[in-house]
Amino acid sequence: MTRLRLLIAYEGGGFKGWQSQAGGGTVQDHLEAAFATLCGKRVVVHGAGRTDSGVHALGQCAHVDVEREMDWITALNGNLPRAIRVLRCTRARADFHARFSAKGKIYTYRIWNGPILSPFELGRAWHLAGPLNIELMRSAARALEGTHDFQAFAANRGKPEKNTTRTIASVSLHKKGPLITLRFQGNGFLYKMVRLMTGALVKTAQGRAPVDSIATYLAGSAGKCSFAAPADGLYLSRVLY
Amino acid sequence: MTRLRLLIAYEGGGFKGWQSQAGGGTVQDHLEAAFATLCGKRVVVHGAGRTDSGVHALGQCAHVDVEREMDWITALNGNLPRAIRVLRCTRARADFHARFSAKGKIYTYRIWNGPILSPFELGRAWHLAGPLNIELMRSAARALEGTHDFQAFAANRGKPEKNTTRTIASVSLHKKGPLITLRFQGNGFLYKMVRLMTGALVKTAQGRAPVDSIATYLAGSAGKCSFAAPADGLYLSRVLY
Repeated sequence: MTRLRLLIAYEGGGFKGWQSQAGGGTVQDHLEAAFATLCGKRVVVHGAGRTDSGVHALGQCAHVDVEREMDWITALNGNLPRAIRVLRCTRARADFHARFSAKGKIYTYRIWNGPILSPFELGRAWHLAGPLNIELMRSAARALEGTHDFQAFAANRGKPEKNTTRTIASVSLHKKGPLITLRFQGNGFLYKMVRLMTGALVKTAQGRAPVDSIATYLAGSAGKCSFAAPADGLYLSRVLY
Repeated sequence: MTRLRLLIAYEGGGFKGWQSQAGGGTVQDHLEAAFATLCGKRVVVHGAGRTDSGVHALGQCAHVDVEREMDWITALNGNLPRAIRVLRCTRARADFHARFSAKGKIYTYRIWNGPILSPFELGRAWHLAGPLNIELMRSAARALEGTHDFQAFAANRGKPEKNTTRTIASVSLHKKGPLITLRFQGNGFLYKMVRLMTGALVKTAQGRAPVDSIATYLAGSAGKCSFAAPADGLYLSRVLY
C-alpha cells in the first residue's frame, strides 16, 4: 500500500463543491471515479478542506492509498474533466493525512471593483461596481488577525463546531487596477468563514458598517454575520503542512 | 441620427464568432438583438474585424446608427450575455466607420507552455506541453515584421483577397512563467493570418521548421502555411484609428 499526496487545482464553476454527494458532480466524485477506473476498485480520496459549490482551488491537497504503481499525474489527468488538474503527485508517509496533518491554509478572495465586470472574470471574482474605501477595508482586515473566537463568522452546517477559536496569521489586501485580492492565512477556517469575513470587510469598505464592527463581532456582542461574499471569488490557494 | 462608437470585450468560447449568421449565436447577433430590443427596430452593428468562433476580444470596435438617446452602456449590457460587455460608448463623427476608418489592429496570442494546462486557462490559451525554443521563436517573429505579401499566411474564405500585402509594424514575444504572449501589430490582417503566423512560429520553436522558413513563405516559394494555431489563444486586443 502506498499513500499518495496530490496537489489539485480546479475551476469550481462547473462542480458542486469538493465533497462527494449522492448525485455526484463534485470534485471528490470525479477524482474517485478516476481512481476507480485506474485501480479497478473504490478508492477514497481524502481532501484537506471542503470547498463549496463554485469555489475554486489553486492548491487543494488530498491523500489516497493505492496498491498499484503508475504515472499517476498523467493517468489521473487523462481521466478527469479538464477543469480539474492534478498538478503534483508524491509518495507520502503512511501517517500523512491531508486534513489532519494540515497546519494551516491560505485562501484568496478576488473582488472586481469597477463599473463593468470583464467577461474574463465571470465566475472568478465578486463584482462590486460601487466605490470601496480600501484604507477602511485594510484597517478592518487587521482587526481579524490574531487568535479569536470566530463563532460570529461561521455558518451552520449540520451540528455546530465545538471549538470556534482560530488563529488568523494575516489578512492582506492587494489592489491592482479594478482587482482587489484579499489573502487570508490561518491555522483553520470555519464553514463559510472566509466568505463571511470578506462580506464584513466589504460592508466596512462600502461605509455600511463601522471599522470596529469586526471587533464587535469577534467579542461576541453582535450576533452572527449573515452577509457572505459569493463563491465566485473564493480560491483555496494553499494548504500548509 | 447619431453614430455611436462601441468598445466591446467578449470571452469568445460560447459564441460562433463575430459575424452574424443564419442560426444566430454570434457576437454581432447578440448585439443586434440588444439594439433591436432597445430601438424597436433592426439596427446593423458594423464591427472592425470578424473574429472566428472561439476567438476572444479585449477591444473589438463597432459603430451603429441610432435615433434615440439613452445610457447605452447600461442598456446594452443589461440586454447582452454576461460574456459580452460594452466597455465604452461614445458619439462618433458621421463619417467614422469601424472597419474602414481603422488604421491597424493589435492581436495577442497566448500560449501555455508547461506540462499541465491550468484549469483557469481552458479555452483561453493554446496548450503546448513540449519544449519551445523562445530565442528561435523571437528570431522567426522578427522575420514577419515589415511590409510583405502575406498570401502564404492567408486561409481561403470564399473569394481570395485581391491585395495580400500587409505591413506588420511589430511582433513581440513576452514570457512569464509558462505563459508566452505574442503581440502582433499591423495595418491589417488576412483571414486566419495571426493563427497561421503563430503556427509557423511555434513550428520553428519546436525545431520542426528552420527559422528561415518564415522568409521562404514570405518570398512565395513555399506554398501556403496550413498549420494554424487554435482559436482558444487568440485575442483581438485593440483597433487603432
